[in-house]
Amino acid sequence: MSRSSPTPRKAALKRRPGRPSATEPSGDRLREVVIEAAMRVYAEHGYQRSSVELMLQAADISRPTFYRLFADKREVIHEALGRAYLDLVTALPAAVISARSLEEGINLALDAYFDWARRHVPGVGAFYREIHDRDSPASELREQALTTFLEVVRARAADLGFPGLDPIFIEALLHVAEYVGGNCFASGNPSEEQILRARQVAGRIILAAVLSGIDNKAVPPLIDFFV
Amino acid sequence: MSRSSPTPRKAALKRRPGRPSATEPSGDRLREVVIEAAMRVYAEHGYQRSSVELMLQAADISRPTFYRLFADKREVIHEALGRAYLDLVTALPAAVISARSLEEGINLALDAYFDWARRHVPGVGAFYREIHDRDSPASELREQALTTFLEVVRARAADLGFPGLDPIFIEALLHVAEYVGGNCFASGNPSEEQILRARQVAGRIILAAVLSGIDNKAVPPLIDFFV
Repeated sequence: MSRSSPTPRKAALKRRPGRPSATEPSGDRLREVVIEAAMRVYAEHGYQRSSVELMLQAADISRPTFYRLFADKREVIHEALGRAYLDLVTALPAAVISARSLEEGINLALDAYFDWARRHVPGVGAFYREIHDRDSPASELREQALTTFLEVVRARAADLGFPGLDPIFIEALLHVAEYVGGNCFASGNPSEEQILRARQVAGRIILAAVLSGIDNKAVPPLIDFFV
Repeated sequence: MSRSSPTPRKAALKRRPGRPSATEPSGDRLREVVIEAAMRVYAEHGYQRSSVELMLQAADISRPTFYRLFADKREVIHEALGRAYLDLVTALPAAVISARSLEEGINLALDAYFDWARRHVPGVGAFYREIHDRDSPASELREQALTTFLEVVRARAADLGFPGLDPIFIEALLHVAEYVGGNCFASGNPSEEQILRARQVAGRIILAAVLSGIDNKAVPPLIDFFV
């Protein structure tokens, strides 16, 4: 095939560089369109494999239009993920602070976390896979959220009679929810039954870790975890 | 500076392409040298940022010598990580199969895991960060090891009176050790005290998850986790 004669399909898909379409949205609305498109691309491809090219196609905009709004793919993905994370960073502390016991706090926080994940399908799976990828904005945003939430949990646990819990211990438990939830949502669109099961598994592990030997009746029985 | 006149330092460091050094090792020994060098590069830079160029420098070999032995960076890193993983995949089942109770099995497996991590510093940190990076051989090797080990644990747990434990539950607990250990070793060279603390945290979480309500005295008391 000659390079100078693209197929009709290619010609229809490919935008001519430098010519913003007359039908493109503009201003704040355009910015939103691009951020939403970037999130769709990210959810499907992850950070390393996302490209500005894929985002142009997803948002149906020209390259110059993209670069008028964002410096690069990192900036737009950072913005998209930052919004999702802000939602989590708001919901989790609210749940923990309202709790009157550690048991209630753990259960409310788990509900808040899984509700958040439900609202952000399908991005949650890609996000979760990148929590340790230093190139991806996911790792930076997650680190900030974890630090904040760790402090909130330590302070609330102290108020409820558990002062000085080791941060390594708390972080490991926060990560149990993140891992079990992340794996559940990583498959794409889990069933409600799968989500509830993941929520239940995280609940037994975290409640047992904190309350075993202190309030054994608050720990869901192991019998629920045989299949 | 002119491109045609490199500084003496650059000239000394840079190998001339295509001319294997007369002092290079050869045969199996050469292969070992390259694999060890690739592991050092990987441990410092991680998969995405490792390059054949860095490996040539670390092994002090020429580019043609490298490509006589390996197709690309992925192949040599896969080989290096595969050896480390084989070591783990041997040690863990041995620990679990020798146990006469679930409590003993968990403790032996945790000891085996942390001993393995000690033997493979500093690669463990990089390895851990990439368990979800689909480009890195770490994710593939970890997936295989996890599947194998999950089956061994399920079978042994059944023998010891716990048949049918949910794989999601077991996998989450295996990952607790992986996460707490991974974070501990990711910093580079943790102190023995930090390693023991990580081991202890993983122990409380896993033992409580499995044995809370069944054998409460096997669960290490929470009082050990206040700082």
